[in-house]
Amino acid sequence: MTGKTRVGEVGRTARKSRSGRTEATRKPGDERWAELLQVAAKTFADKGYSATTLQGIADELGMLKGSLYYYIRTKEDLLFELVRSVLVLAEERLAERVPDDGPAVDRLEVLVREHVIFLIEHLTETTVYLHEADQLTADRRAKLPVHGFIARLEKLVVDGKEDGTIRPDADPHLGALTILGAANWVYRWYRPGGNSSPEEIAEEIARMCRKSLEA
Amino acid sequence: MTGKTRVGEVGRTARKSRSGRTEATRKPGDERWAELLQVAAKTFADKGYSATTLQGIADELGMLKGSLYYYIRTKEDLLFELVRSVLVLAEERLAERVPDDGPAVDRLEVLVREHVIFLIEHLTETTVYLHEADQLTADRRAKLPVHGFIARLEKLVVDGKEDGTIRPDADPHLGALTILGAANWVYRWYRPGGNSSPEEIAEEIARMCRKSLEA
Repeated sequence: MTGKTRVGEVGRTARKSRSGRTEATRKPGDERWAELLQVAAKTFADKGYSATTLQGIADELGMLKGSLYYYIRTKEDLLFELVRSVLVLAEERLAERVPDDGPAVDRLEVLVREHVIFLIEHLTETTVYLHEADQLTADRRAKLPVHGFIARLEKLVVDGKEDGTIRPDADPHLGALTILGAANWVYRWYRPGGNSSPEEIAEEIARMCRKSLEA
Repeated sequence: MTGKTRVGEVGRTARKSRSGRTEATRKPGDERWAELLQVAAKTFADKGYSATTLQGIADELGMLKGSLYYYIRTKEDLLFELVRSVLVLAEERLAERVPDDGPAVDRLEVLVREHVIFLIEHLTETTVYLHEADQLTADRRAKLPVHGFIARLEKLVVDGKEDGTIRPDADPHLGALTILGAANWVYRWYRPGGNSSPEEIAEEIARMCRKSLEA
């Protein structure tokens, strides 16, 4: 699957614009929206959010800057929609692929593996999220569904201490944050075409995270 | 030890300015240099490198902008010296505190612990390094002593596979990168005055990293 298709996928997640259009009522124009998110993600990732202008994004798309206002009002709207979309998509993916029962340490391993694979598949958007989410206003940041992964991890550590698959002295919060770092750090060093495939990388990181907490 | 003292410490690491002054020939003016690095670190960390101006830093210090040119020529010089100083200091600290012999997995645990404690003690400078080093020219980045920690980690994984303290299927490079992420992520969530002390946080992360690779 190409980066381009994946980026488009972000634009296709449930979205409700100011004008009230949602996934269910998607119009042809929404392909333009997906393309806008894709170009914005690439530009924010390459040049940084601060150095990017709506004019530059419009130029890249071959649109008039004024036409962007059909979709968004400000550059921050664009960052917010982009980041929100990728977080929603990640949540959907994890909900779909991580089982709800079974030994907690097994589920933790799957969760980390799927998170790393998702991160690599959506490297541009996750890079923008991890680098630039601080640029959003506090109000906007509070609306991002950012706590899903960490809450799942914490709950799995608690569950694993109960079912005996995670060591009794594990600290759920600190353990979850440490695993988050081990997994997210991939965005800083992963380059396509390296020695290991995304699946191999994800498997190894997930194995290490499992062992770090296993009883 | 206060953040302020620590920040000063960064300015006191071996430094050779364009005018050839070094630690050995430190002049009274070098206290001003340490203060300049301290203010720059705080400003870069709070506002971001792009949004910071030399004029703003001069104002903060109560200096004329022209006086800054005694120390540096550009804003990038300041970022470079700041980042280089903290990396040199980290190297010195790890060389001093991590033993050269003994079971590799024990040394790995000490290395991670000391790295995390250092990172927390120098949170402002490490944040600037981790967020802003990309803003340096490639030429400058190539001059940073950034590979010390990862090289040490990789070597310890290799050593541990030989001495039998690290699992035979561990991948030295991927393992080192994953541990780097687990340890460095602290800069994103650590806030002074939380539930755990820096030492407790460092101990737990180091324990998890040890177990992630232990035979």
